[in-house]
Amino acid sequence: MKYVYRFDEGDATMKDLLGGKGANLAEMTRMGLPVPQGFTITTKACKEYISTGQMPARLMDQVSRALADLERASGRTFGAGSDPLLLSVRSGARFSMPGMMDTVLNLGLNDATVGALASASGDERFALDSYRRLLQMFGDVVLGIEHEVFEEALGTIRREEGADFDNEISVAGLAEVIAAYKRAYSAHGVEFPQDPRRQLALSIEAVFRSWDNPRAKTYRRLNGIPDDIGTAVNVQRMVFGNMGAGSATGVAFTRNPATGERERYGEYLLNAQGEDVVAGIRTPRPIAGLAEDMPEVWERLSAAFDELERHYAEMQDFEFTVERGHLHILQTRTGKRTAQAAVKIAVDMLEEGLIDVETSLMRVKPEQLEMLLHRQIDPKAKHDPVTRGLSASPGATAGQVVFTADDAVEWNGEGKRVILVRIETKPDDIHGFDAAAGILTSTGGMTSHAAVVARAMGKPCIAGAEALRIDYAARRMTVGDIVICEGDVVTIDGTRGEVMVGELPMVEAKISGDLARFLANADRVRRLGIRANADTPESAAKAIEFGAEGIGLCRTERMFNAVDRLPSVQQMILSKDADERRSILDTLFAFQKADFREILSIMDGKPVIVRLLDPPLHEFLPTRAELEAELDALRTERSLARVHGRAPDVSSLPRGVAELVSSGGLEAFDGLIAERMSMLASIEELAEVNPMLGHRGVRLGITHPDIYEMQIRAIATAAAELVREGKDPRPEVMVPQVTLRRELDVVKRTFDRVIAEVVRESGVELHIEYGTMIETVRACLVAEDLAGVADFFSFGTNDLTQATFSFSREDAEAKFLPFYETMEIIDGNPFQTLDPEGVAGLVATGVKHGRKKRKDLTVGICGEHGGDPASVHLFHGIGLDYVSCSPFRIPIARLAAAQAALEGKRSKGKKA
Amino acid sequence: MKYVYRFDEGDATMKDLLGGKGANLAEMTRMGLPVPQGFTITTKACKEYISTGQMPARLMDQVSRALADLERASGRTFGAGSDPLLLSVRSGARFSMPGMMDTVLNLGLNDATVGALASASGDERFALDSYRRLLQMFGDVVLGIEHEVFEEALGTIRREEGADFDNEISVAGLAEVIAAYKRAYSAHGVEFPQDPRRQLALSIEAVFRSWDNPRAKTYRRLNGIPDDIGTAVNVQRMVFGNMGAGSATGVAFTRNPATGERERYGEYLLNAQGEDVVAGIRTPRPIAGLAEDMPEVWERLSAAFDELERHYAEMQDFEFTVERGHLHILQTRTGKRTAQAAVKIAVDMLEEGLIDVETSLMRVKPEQLEMLLHRQIDPKAKHDPVTRGLSASPGATAGQVVFTADDAVEWNGEGKRVILVRIETKPDDIHGFDAAAGILTSTGGMTSHAAVVARAMGKPCIAGAEALRIDYAARRMTVGDIVICEGDVVTIDGTRGEVMVGELPMVEAKISGDLARFLANADRVRRLGIRANADTPESAAKAIEFGAEGIGLCRTERMFNAVDRLPSVQQMILSKDADERRSILDTLFAFQKADFREILSIMDGKPVIVRLLDPPLHEFLPTRAELEAELDALRTERSLARVHGRAPDVSSLPRGVAELVSSGGLEAFDGLIAERMSMLASIEELAEVNPMLGHRGVRLGITHPDIYEMQIRAIATAAAELVREGKDPRPEVMVPQVTLRRELDVVKRTFDRVIAEVVRESGVELHIEYGTMIETVRACLVAEDLAGVADFFSFGTNDLTQATFSFSREDAEAKFLPFYETMEIIDGNPFQTLDPEGVAGLVATGVKHGRKKRKDLTVGICGEHGGDPASVHLFHGIGLDYVSCSPFRIPIARLAAAQAALEGKRSKGKKA
Repeated sequence: MKYVYRFDEGDATMKDLLGGKGANLAEMTRMGLPVPQGFTITTKACKEYISTGQMPARLMDQVSRALADLERASGRTFGAGSDPLLLSVRSGARFSMPGMMDTVLNLGLNDATVGALASASGDERFALDSYRRLLQMFGDVVLGIEHEVFEEALGTIRREEGADFDNEISVAGLAEVIAAYKRAYSAHGVEFPQDPRRQLALSIEAVFRSWDNPRAKTYRRLNGIPDDIGTAVNVQRMVFGNMGAGSATGVAFTRNPATGERERYGEYLLNAQGEDVVAGIRTPRPIAGLAEDMPEVWERLSAAFDELERHYAEMQDFEFTVERGHLHILQTRTGKRTAQAAVKIAVDMLEEGLIDVETSLMRVKPEQLEMLLHRQIDPKAKHDPVTRGLSASPGATAGQVVFTADDAVEWNGEGKRVILVRIETKPDDIHGFDAAAGILTSTGGMTSHAAVVARAMGKPCIAGAEALRIDYAARRMTVGDIVICEGDVVTIDGTRGEVMVGELPMVEAKISGDLARFLANADRVRRLGIRANADTPESAAKAIEFGAEGIGLCRTERMFNAVDRLPSVQQMILSKDADERRSILDTLFAFQKADFREILSIMDGKPVIVRLLDPPLHEFLPTRAELEAELDALRTERSLARVHGRAPDVSSLPRGVAELVSSGGLEAFDGLIAERMSMLASIEELAEVNPMLGHRGVRLGITHPDIYEMQIRAIATAAAELVREGKDPRPEVMVPQVTLRRELDVVKRTFDRVIAEVVRESGVELHIEYGTMIETVRACLVAEDLAGVADFFSFGTNDLTQATFSFSREDAEAKFLPFYETMEIIDGNPFQTLDPEGVAGLVATGVKHGRKKRKDLTVGICGEHGGDPASVHLFHGIGLDYVSCSPFRIPIARLAAAQAALEGKRSKGKKA
Repeated sequence: MKYVYRFDEGDATMKDLLGGKGANLAEMTRMGLPVPQGFTITTKACKEYISTGQMPARLMDQVSRALADLERASGRTFGAGSDPLLLSVRSGARFSMPGMMDTVLNLGLNDATVGALASASGDERFALDSYRRLLQMFGDVVLGIEHEVFEEALGTIRREEGADFDNEISVAGLAEVIAAYKRAYSAHGVEFPQDPRRQLALSIEAVFRSWDNPRAKTYRRLNGIPDDIGTAVNVQRMVFGNMGAGSATGVAFTRNPATGERERYGEYLLNAQGEDVVAGIRTPRPIAGLAEDMPEVWERLSAAFDELERHYAEMQDFEFTVERGHLHILQTRTGKRTAQAAVKIAVDMLEEGLIDVETSLMRVKPEQLEMLLHRQIDPKAKHDPVTRGLSASPGATAGQVVFTADDAVEWNGEGKRVILVRIETKPDDIHGFDAAAGILTSTGGMTSHAAVVARAMGKPCIAGAEALRIDYAARRMTVGDIVICEGDVVTIDGTRGEVMVGELPMVEAKISGDLARFLANADRVRRLGIRANADTPESAAKAIEFGAEGIGLCRTERMFNAVDRLPSVQQMILSKDADERRSILDTLFAFQKADFREILSIMDGKPVIVRLLDPPLHEFLPTRAELEAELDALRTERSLARVHGRAPDVSSLPRGVAELVSSGGLEAFDGLIAERMSMLASIEELAEVNPMLGHRGVRLGITHPDIYEMQIRAIATAAAELVREGKDPRPEVMVPQVTLRRELDVVKRTFDRVIAEVVRESGVELHIEYGTMIETVRACLVAEDLAGVADFFSFGTNDLTQATFSFSREDAEAKFLPFYETMEIIDGNPFQTLDPEGVAGLVATGVKHGRKKRKDLTVGICGEHGGDPASVHLFHGIGLDYVSCSPFRIPIARLAAAQAALEGKRSKGKKA
């Protein structure tokens, strides 16, 4: 088994075996770029280690041989001689997991070689600092000594010497630090191995081990990276950016990762090691500065920018080090980018002829688009930033300030929106990123941990807001004389890097420019239609703007819930009198007709599927507890008024209750109490054990036929009026919760009769389709039968998932689903991504049986899954006609549908 | 199209065309029995009439030809001449619908022929009475004049003449009745048609029309008779049982329909028409009396008994009339019988060689057996009947007295058990039979409407309890000086015909004698295994007694709910402390182990599937409302005690709350209030929106692993102890609510570990199977996967039905399912009989996929459907290994399984 590959033995295609970093180091070696030489230990070796707990036999023999080659090529000896060869050991998995696994640098130094390094470099300070760094990393990574121990020792000397930064510590001070570090090893019961080969072997093993550390596992889970692929280990000759004035280290992107502009982007620190840039301890300079600082290096580096991007046909993120005037490229990888940049780069590279349209479309993850569609601060709003930082990840958000990742998780769990504020962030903080709406740090640059992770997650982030003074202990931060405490609300604008106190008004995003071009390409490729779930004129307009081809789900219960209608709805529910009920329904008819007119008018010429009333009636009444509290307040005040012989005092009532009382007289109280009592009785009558499976949807439509009749008439009348005004309204009527063919038949009779009446009265011909939600399991099973009545199907995958799993979504998400996800009993939340085994199978069954009966049956899906990319892939595969999702998910669905079509074509190609 | 068949043109196989009655009249004509001749109008004619609303063209031509044949054969002329031929017109569908449709007798009489009849018969009274009857029936049936109008006119004359019965009215009186009837016609704006052929045509049409009268529709729905088969109409020469002393009419059964004894059974009235027997107005004499009254007729009749039974190889129920010494048989049909009689006749006829074992087994409806398994009055209980009546339908029951069918329905709807008490019952009362637990009438015989219907429904009934004086207006009845008012509880024993005041203790039925022999035959034929749902030693013992081959479902939550365990269970739920929790689980372990020991011991050598805890934890706590009421009572009393400076008074508390307080001190109150407050908090924490789809079953088992671990250990330990005592316990462990393969995996790890520990500790080898309920839809869909872990499947078809329909059973049955059944939107309650389209398909999918993975997978069903015959047929067809049902349904399941096997064989035979 070959476990070790020299860089000149591999290439970019070998990522599975050599990891991303190793494969690219090999590729760059082939390209002739100045890569410090070394070798890669394969992921196979790691997998063997993980499964057996043992280093593979013969591995270290192969390492020795590769090391001998390296020594021969460099003319130096590892950890020995007058100019000792030093090595770095870095992890490198198939997929990038920045900062998640471990790295050890400067291997080969020991009490003896540190002197040789000092002589060879002519810089004792540098040599001691390098040794100090080795001791610190090795102690932390290989031997598990807490890194705070080393920070403390370093801090002590820094304070003693009055130094602000580590690089100001004196030679003597560094010697003391080394002594202190060694004492820390002893206190830990271990010793630093002086034998360089032992250092190397232990470091390789430590990197293997780090594959399964908790933060790496969390990262993999969040990013959908498999647990069983292991990491490769790259052993590479050390080059030093901290070897004095002619040295530097930096990180570069071939295009701007925030905006996507085609420009040389990056930053560097003079006389520093790479970790100093990433850790965000010193604030680095923009890359263009190198043209002045090191003109020759800049020329070589500029060429590398072009070569890399041309070679990979993709934006590259690479690290470089300048050691005494010599440029070295340490690694390259596909650069992470903001959504905005991803779209711009995809569109630009297509236009530049670097990539084709398929590649362009596959270059953006659909989920990324969401960020572009998020709100920004209203440009008209006056806003005074209290401070500024780097625009690390665009988008604006507001939230309450918290200072630890744990607090972010806890507060978020309580339903609060939070901004995580840190001096700097570390991989350990990853759970806090997940919980926070935005991230704000006082140190670090565009490539700091906070910036990289926030961009990857699509969360607004401001990094390096240096004016902030953060006091973790007091749970507050100050900027000038402004104090912001934990829990205070701030707004951060990651696009502009501005921090504001309080919550600012926001505006919605628009689709234009690059995004519009990109999505137009997606539209040319996709087969699935895209509709919107929208039940207000505003959301209908938004749907059109975002590219919806119709409304797949217009719920009518939200209209019932509107403040001006709810009292009528409640009156209807409570009414025992047929005449009264009819007159209330007339009022509701007028409301609903107006609603439908507006929406149909906006969606002129496009289909609008209106779902008849779905929720159980008790959802329109207050809860029992609310009513009991109201009654209690009313009765108490009435009793007091009686006892004291005065008029009851409305002002003594809680606000909500006081608003109910129109006048303060006792009669008003009596009347209101009687009315509330009667409502309470209705609530008890309507109460259900399992409302999700109760008296709702078509069941209600059948037992209370006047409601559906009113709704159907409102839809038809609105359409007839619009036709007369020269418009082209296309309403379709959808019946929810159907289980039995005869349920559809019964409502169909009302539908036919009412449409005929409206046609007769209005003199307008109407062609309104009649269809059904497929959201019960039985509906999928008897779909052939249902298609005998229904012109169209629309799958309600939320309810269908609940019924298939026997999981009540609310209860499951509150009680056991998160636990199931953590325990990996379930692969993700089936309410977010369609269950490919169970629910998808039922959808496919429903489609097949429905089309068997009616070839031209239109079949869509209008659950939340319609906006989830993985689910959209499943729906494409099942052969639906369209997906319908919330307006803000439409661009995501357009892209996901295009990608599904491309992948479908690709896998067909493979088969053929 | 041939619409009319003379009796000598048909035979018994032509029931679809001629109806049951017509086919049998033809068959008896062929047999040479003395059947008054006539002809049958086919069901096709009726169907045409129903669909077109028109009498089929040419129908009356064919009737005229058949009538001419009849006139020729009888030598008399229809409705003319000196001895006019008179006709009856009777309905007769494919399936017997006694009393549901209409009949007209004495057709052919008019103002002229009534005189001829008087002369020919020499009995003017008889002629007038016959005419009076024609006018009454024709008015009611053909012209829709309410029959009360005629009853009233008749009653007036009876009172004027001081006559007790109609047959005491004088000739002049009858003439006056006829005149009054004609006035009633005029008041109704119609006239009685004097033309006999017009009478006939209108009567035939009226019978057609009566197919769709409401009570016929209800009857068909209750009895599963299709609506589209129509009725035939039999036109037959009238013979008169009321032509004086040598005449009689009667109803006979070839065996005793109550007990099944092989004896000539029936009753007759001298000088009466058939309707007088059925209506129960006069109490008839037992059939054997004829031997004395009419010895020659008796001889001929006895022969007919034998001929009919031998010919049909089935117990016959036939009607006869003796006209002046001549016996006529008017119809025969398969006799309805009690369950007891059905079993005895099936067994006896098999032993007599009349039928084979298959026929014997098909002769009893499985549902009928339930009656034999119902409770009887404890023989040891002292009981003083207040009165006696006929043993019209066996079995005993108690309930509150109601006097109208409507009240029976209403009271039953309120959850009350009621006894319907009537002077006599009519087909209009059919809905009351459905709602009542038993029926009691003060008039009528064994073949009265009440008796026939009650037997068919398997409800206890006492008919003709003549000492009862029933006062509908006052809503009470008296017997001697005992007054029983509406709402009072009585016990009726239909087996012995005894009525008792109050509710008597009952005992359960035993399986022995005929039933045991019958079921043993069933066991030899069936393929399905039969197990019981039992979770107490008592029900396990009952299961064995009724023939269970194991326990298919032993729920453990009932054990948790037992009075002595519930406090521990609640303590466990409320406990926040791990140590405390562990100690409570130890207590519960001891309880459960003892439970399992007992049940496993009773079921020695038979499988016992124990289901791990299923319901959500909140089910073990009081409801919020209960707790709030308790808290309120406790706080109020504590406040009062404080204000008055006295010790709190337990006696002032409601009973339930008082019991909670162990001592009366203030501290006890404080402690209890604190405890209840903490329980209230837990209830709120555990509350769920849709508990049926919530945190229960395996979800609870995984998040609270110590509960399942305790239960598995209790099962295994109980088994180990029994093995050491030389027993053969066969427990199996079943996990509920499984949706995901990994849920089963997680519990399996605990299972394997605990079993291994018990094996190690006890030194006993245990082989305990591990299986899963299949009660979520997803479990059916991923059954192949589940069978990779599970040794057995048991379908929970109640939950599966809920999930498939998205019907919460409780809510559906309370809110809309009855409405759906009435509206015929659904074919019956899917919680009673398995939905053959949706749910049965899922079960079949689950079985197929499960067996694909594991050939020897044991598959059963343990929902309530396991005891429903139609569902058992479906399960047989799907190929399950067994059904499991409540002990009392086991005999039913045994028979249903046998019938399913026989029908399976038959349909296979047909295919081959």
